[in-house]
Amino acid sequence: MSEMRRDPIVGRWVVIDVDHPKGPGDFYKENNARHRRATCQFCPGKEHFTPPEVDALRPAGGGPNAPGWLARTVPNKFPALTREGEVVKEGLGMFDVMSGVGAHEVVIETPDHDKDLADLNAEEMGFVLKQYVGRSRELARDKRHKYVCIFKNFGPSAGSTVEHAHSQIIALPMVPKTVLEELRGAQSYEQKHRACVFCDVIEREYKDRERIVCENNSFLAFCPYAPRYAFETWIIPKAHSAFFSDLDDAALKDLAAHLLENLVRMRKALSNPSYNFYIHTAPIDYLRPQHYHWHIEIIPKLTRSIGFEWGTGLHIVPTFPHVAAKYLREA
Amino acid sequence: MSEMRRDPIVGRWVVIDVDHPKGPGDFYKENNARHRRATCQFCPGKEHFTPPEVDALRPAGGGPNAPGWLARTVPNKFPALTREGEVVKEGLGMFDVMSGVGAHEVVIETPDHDKDLADLNAEEMGFVLKQYVGRSRELARDKRHKYVCIFKNFGPSAGSTVEHAHSQIIALPMVPKTVLEELRGAQSYEQKHRACVFCDVIEREYKDRERIVCENNSFLAFCPYAPRYAFETWIIPKAHSAFFSDLDDAALKDLAAHLLENLVRMRKALSNPSYNFYIHTAPIDYLRPQHYHWHIEIIPKLTRSIGFEWGTGLHIVPTFPHVAAKYLREA
Repeated sequence: MSEMRRDPIVGRWVVIDVDHPKGPGDFYKENNARHRRATCQFCPGKEHFTPPEVDALRPAGGGPNAPGWLARTVPNKFPALTREGEVVKEGLGMFDVMSGVGAHEVVIETPDHDKDLADLNAEEMGFVLKQYVGRSRELARDKRHKYVCIFKNFGPSAGSTVEHAHSQIIALPMVPKTVLEELRGAQSYEQKHRACVFCDVIEREYKDRERIVCENNSFLAFCPYAPRYAFETWIIPKAHSAFFSDLDDAALKDLAAHLLENLVRMRKALSNPSYNFYIHTAPIDYLRPQHYHWHIEIIPKLTRSIGFEWGTGLHIVPTFPHVAAKYLREA
Repeated sequence: MSEMRRDPIVGRWVVIDVDHPKGPGDFYKENNARHRRATCQFCPGKEHFTPPEVDALRPAGGGPNAPGWLARTVPNKFPALTREGEVVKEGLGMFDVMSGVGAHEVVIETPDHDKDLADLNAEEMGFVLKQYVGRSRELARDKRHKYVCIFKNFGPSAGSTVEHAHSQIIALPMVPKTVLEELRGAQSYEQKHRACVFCDVIEREYKDRERIVCENNSFLAFCPYAPRYAFETWIIPKAHSAFFSDLDDAALKDLAAHLLENLVRMRKALSNPSYNFYIHTAPIDYLRPQHYHWHIEIIPKLTRSIGFEWGTGLHIVPTFPHVAAKYLREA
């Protein structure tokens, strides 16, 4: 007998396939070992191959677009959205069209070509997060932007086409649908319960315990009750906070250690899988921060079938979240 | 300069990447050539390897679960949902859980192991559609079911694990989220405009012409104005109709020819890509059939990055739909 579960935030039903449960050994294995090419366009000394940097961490000094950086953010050479121009919105009968104004940047996470994000130490992970926060704040100042998406694709089957460790930032002239759905769900929960649904989820995770992966001072990692994918893991600040970009230095340090720990656990438990993670935060200038709660969703790419979920809206998940959490805890 | 477009049904914004447009030659090529294994468990003579059939077309007669069929539907050996039991819904605090009662069936599209769906002739395609319609009607009679999903995964990267041509049917105790979103969008459009949004889209497609792939007596195929994927194609009945299962024999014949034509065009234009298609129809016993309009969405799997769209809610599409339609028209 399978079990259907409903996500408390957006109301999505998923099927947990209890009859044919899968553990870490039951998924398709990908070889995400590094190729160890000597250098690439993201390596130190090749700075002139990227568009001029918009930010970089150079504790030992040195000018921009030269070696000496520990983390570096550059505009995407092939941006999906363009920096220049005004946001022009037009109605063409029943169709709406808008100029694709925004920003599309790449955070080069380490100068070392031979390291993945999970190979960094906590201090180095902090450098990456510092770029995320800095760019989030900077891009939010542009009045044309309504939302800043930060995400990482690791491994070819998660959509990564460049081997050198990197993540991406996209600033958008509108709020993406996935976030709108969470905002709507959170707002309706707040109207009914006078509480943040994410805070209530955290409370519930502490009560049930079994879906918790790990925690530290400021952050909790758990496998959500109604996941869309096997081993889906969320990282959430324990204290209510709507905006990722409000992260202060102490919390940033905690997040660096915590995110690293979770990536290492996932790599161990699932044999270095491809994965995506993305930061869900409130839209820029969002006026109801009491009901939204930023978090990171990490989704390892373990099965190849994603297409049909798009069509049917139905996710069939072969692993109970409490079982996934146990594997991740013990990794 | 990129262009953002909004889907008129569910309101989703997508980015069309105008600066780096991709044609059929620019995507990753997969080898979906058949392996030509002599027989498999879906082949005639192996009927005892599947659970007992629930329907089959045997124009020359013969008993069930024996050779002589032209299309055959069997319960999935590893069903995501189980046939037996009542739908028990329970609230566990903020979490809702429901027993996974439903049906999960496999339509074996042809006895010939060496044929893909696109290799069938229009008559044979009609046999497959007849199974779809028959099973839709039959599964709708079960009071526990609220929705019947019909879909096909072709090629490993679209999630297919069995080579012998087949599609799947899932009956659900609830309406899936993707369909609910379309219903909500259609309902709100109907309230404003006193018209079916899908009928208005059809009218608009005829006016603009450039996104139309092909048509016949009863059906139109077009690449939607704000697609989620490159070369996404919709097949829609020209006359308003909410339920796929209302298809009569004449329309079924037209659909068989039309679906076949579109699969062949896609295979030619895109070098036999993996693809998913799914039928979106109104829920069983839906009370407002005037505002919903069933259709088939076909999505070729041309890029590997799907994970991040889930997170950001943002689809970046590298091909204008009118350009995709032109390639498909000329294939």
